[in-house]
Amino acid sequence: MRLGAIEAGGTKFVCAVGNEHGHVEEKASFPTTNPEETLQLVLSFFQDKRIKALGIGAFGPVDVKADSPTYGTIGNTPKLQWKDYALLAVLKEKLGVPVKLDTDVNAAALGEYMHGAAKHAGSCLYMTVGTGIGAGAIVNGETVQGYSHPEMGHLLIRRHPNDAYPGKCPYHSDCLEGLAAGPAIEARWGEQAQKLYQQEEVWRMEAHYLAQAIMTYTLVLSPEKIIMGGGVMKKEGLHNMVQQELENLMQHYVPLPDNYLAAPGLADNAGIVGALMLAKDAH
Amino acid sequence: MRLGAIEAGGTKFVCAVGNEHGHVEEKASFPTTNPEETLQLVLSFFQDKRIKALGIGAFGPVDVKADSPTYGTIGNTPKLQWKDYALLAVLKEKLGVPVKLDTDVNAAALGEYMHGAAKHAGSCLYMTVGTGIGAGAIVNGETVQGYSHPEMGHLLIRRHPNDAYPGKCPYHSDCLEGLAAGPAIEARWGEQAQKLYQQEEVWRMEAHYLAQAIMTYTLVLSPEKIIMGGGVMKKEGLHNMVQQELENLMQHYVPLPDNYLAAPGLADNAGIVGALMLAKDAH
Repeated sequence: MRLGAIEAGGTKFVCAVGNEHGHVEEKASFPTTNPEETLQLVLSFFQDKRIKALGIGAFGPVDVKADSPTYGTIGNTPKLQWKDYALLAVLKEKLGVPVKLDTDVNAAALGEYMHGAAKHAGSCLYMTVGTGIGAGAIVNGETVQGYSHPEMGHLLIRRHPNDAYPGKCPYHSDCLEGLAAGPAIEARWGEQAQKLYQQEEVWRMEAHYLAQAIMTYTLVLSPEKIIMGGGVMKKEGLHNMVQQELENLMQHYVPLPDNYLAAPGLADNAGIVGALMLAKDAH
Repeated sequence: MRLGAIEAGGTKFVCAVGNEHGHVEEKASFPTTNPEETLQLVLSFFQDKRIKALGIGAFGPVDVKADSPTYGTIGNTPKLQWKDYALLAVLKEKLGVPVKLDTDVNAAALGEYMHGAAKHAGSCLYMTVGTGIGAGAIVNGETVQGYSHPEMGHLLIRRHPNDAYPGKCPYHSDCLEGLAAGPAIEARWGEQAQKLYQQEEVWRMEAHYLAQAIMTYTLVLSPEKIIMGGGVMKKEGLHNMVQQELENLMQHYVPLPDNYLAAPGLADNAGIVGALMLAKDAH
């Protein structure tokens, strides 16, 4: 069955055609400019592809409640041209197929859960550490949604004693994203994360922050596996440093599964494969 | 349909007979001493009650995985006589009815979700603040379980600038439970919580800690309603103080539902009503 998938991000829209087993046949990406321009490129990609359904993993805030009149509409984003844009409704009308949408991180969690590093786990959490920090989770076989979608990147964490950097989050200054996302690393140390690979103290501090987040996710959700991806996590050895910090923090209070922290099994395709799974559900 | 319910706590076992609509017909409670003594009292309560199924909300750690060979067995508890005790298996064999078990806080969350303060919500979290701090949650219509059950009382939070008390948790010293449960309040201020009701600073500090936990639960789970119960929450006005602190912390980053924080709708019966719902599921 031919299915369509979109990973709608803040800088680019990745579009793909694939099947219900998560196999990606064709992929293209287009810059995120304004809705008219970007959607025109997206629609011409899907033209003549004869997809049976579409899945979307979208940047947020976005209305993810399937029974809401504004399902799939972008919320109060700093990208003003996209605010209140009815992304799902437009694509559904133009393509004439059923469409299902979730957040970008929930789609990535779903992809890893069905076909990636968590495919043998009963529950999982996917965390991305890059330009921003976000996470999605699968509990009882479904993505976590409640009143709105989770916003796991803005946890309040404890500051490292050697960290004088005030934090970069416009809402909470020194929340997790404000202290540990790529732009915070660059602002604190004066260079991009990938140019700091040799500096031990940078990554000790980063692991200190990320381990606090992993501890929180563990205490609240108790997932069987946590997958950590995104640009910042490409630093070699960082997963192990986080694991060590996590063990220090937890003090064996709850047992942790073997191989608890993992790199993505689908590399950069987690979101797209998850979107294919959303398309399968929609169909 | 006559159903049995047990709220198995660290100081007492509350037993009840009721029906599938959450109506409690008869209730009794027995001290938690050693398994043989306590279970004898429990079994004589249920004798001749002709229940069709039993639900249990149990203190932890406890194995909550229904497909596990040690389902319903108590784990590594400081109550040494209960360690490795096969609570569910013993009751199932002696009573000859199907039995379902979850944690005490998950049972209370289920009770409030089905018949209490969250009965019109699609998801909820139940938090108890008393001798300890714990929380249970309903997501996608089911209690949250993963590798183990959540342990939401042990979140790492930020210390109040005026708080020099080192914290009471044997694992993490100054985690949420270590700083904000009843025994921590008493140790810090030198008197039991209910004798400190007139001292504003006690409750400002308490609200500062509890609001951080509510913020975390909100960012990770996005529940439609949060119910706060337990002995410490009986202080008048504390729910409102937590609500104000929460708004300060969140900085309107995510919208909060109206009447987000609530007192239990079932008073002290949340756990028992939830256990009746577990019994209904078991049947």
